[in-house]
Amino acid sequence: MINYLANIKIMLKKGILDVQGKTVENALNSMEFDNIHNVRIGKYVELIVSAKNKEEARHIVDQASSKLIANPIIEDYEITLNELKVE
Amino acid sequence: MINYLANIKIMLKKGILDVQGKTVENALNSMEFDNIHNVRIGKYVELIVSAKNKEEARHIVDQASSKLIANPIIEDYEITLNELKVE
Repeated sequence: MINYLANIKIMLKKGILDVQGKTVENALNSMEFDNIHNVRIGKYVELIVSAKNKEEARHIVDQASSKLIANPIIEDYEITLNELKVE
Repeated sequence: MINYLANIKIMLKKGILDVQGKTVENALNSMEFDNIHNVRIGKYVELIVSAKNKEEARHIVDQASSKLIANPIIEDYEITLNELKVE
């Protein structure tokens, strides 16, 4: 089995109001940061997955993301996989 | 002024117990995902910043991250900047 480091970037789908992002944007604008806009806040997940090959690893992470990590009704996710080298 | 798209990846510092990640890992392991481990959960922020140049943009985003977006006592953050092309 090969170990892969998976990075999953999860963001609200376009068109869904990002209340948390808007709140942070308003807070920044009321401080000295009035040159920051379009703040969107998502999640970033790192994990290690053991699989026979990269395709199997991607399938496992994709299943885990859609079943538990992300909410595919309101969120989009993007998976990046890198093989972990054994020293 | 030039617009830059900033991506900020925020993770708990190494050594700080990631309770949320551990909970997700336990949940995955109790489902069919027993080949996933070392789950760590962070935040991912996207924003647009207007600045004279990339150095100024990085400075503004760095200040905003350490003052409001991240908690530098327990979190590390990583900023990526890309100039937004005007069509």
